[in-house]
Amino acid sequence: MKKISKHYIPKGFEKQEILPAIAQDEKTKEVLMVAYMNKEAYKKTLESGKAHYFSRSRNRLWMKGEESGHTQTVKKVFVDCDEDTVLLTVKQENAACHTGYKSCFFSEVLSNGTTAARGRKLFNPDKVYGSKKK
Amino acid sequence: MKKISKHYIPKGFEKQEILPAIAQDEKTKEVLMVAYMNKEAYKKTLESGKAHYFSRSRNRLWMKGEESGHTQTVKKVFVDCDEDTVLLTVKQENAACHTGYKSCFFSEVLSNGTTAARGRKLFNPDKVYGSKKK
Repeated sequence: MKKISKHYIPKGFEKQEILPAIAQDEKTKEVLMVAYMNKEAYKKTLESGKAHYFSRSRNRLWMKGEESGHTQTVKKVFVDCDEDTVLLTVKQENAACHTGYKSCFFSEVLSNGTTAARGRKLFNPDKVYGSKKK
Repeated sequence: MKKISKHYIPKGFEKQEILPAIAQDEKTKEVLMVAYMNKEAYKKTLESGKAHYFSRSRNRLWMKGEESGHTQTVKKVFVDCDEDTVLLTVKQENAACHTGYKSCFFSEVLSNGTTAARGRKLFNPDKVYGSKKK
């Protein structure tokens, strides 16, 4: 997206400190992942043009791809009617999921009580992250 | 989806009572809306084949379209790698948003600090919901 001259702040931040944010592939329209944004992550995303999120478990701001290189270049930013969810359309480097799949939503829930992996792995997580994150 | 013989319960429900759930149009791949599911809403969705959510503000289970008739027939169910977000691909009756737009994410955030509505309204909310919900 174009250089930001002024931030539009979603109204949801008045009620909640963090909002869910969806990253969607701008071309294939695949839903790639859902993470969370605080106001800082949201602003950083708009300013830098790269998706930034707030990690609830690590309690810190992170840029998607800061370790793996699998960054998300933001094309468009949307908010929903309640302004409590953010949708980014992005150009995804390599793959979004830390498991190696393009999308984090690679597990389809089947009617027999199991799941099945869909799609194929685009990278080997051991090579990208070492052995600490699989 | 096929008749459910056994429920696969996402692991996220072990840690959180409600999980975000995305509804995506199965054909156009548009992200239609994000709502929340408790375990009951999730099970009801799988059993009935119609998207059910848990309303945090009204503190109750609801079926999408119960008032408007704009139901979501579920085609596929996915969970993400952490199993703390659900993705439904659906056939959306008419439009998902209570404002009349197909998707709740009709507001694009612009770089000048404003938003712009994208798409067009598919119904008149006053006619569907009366004057109580605009």
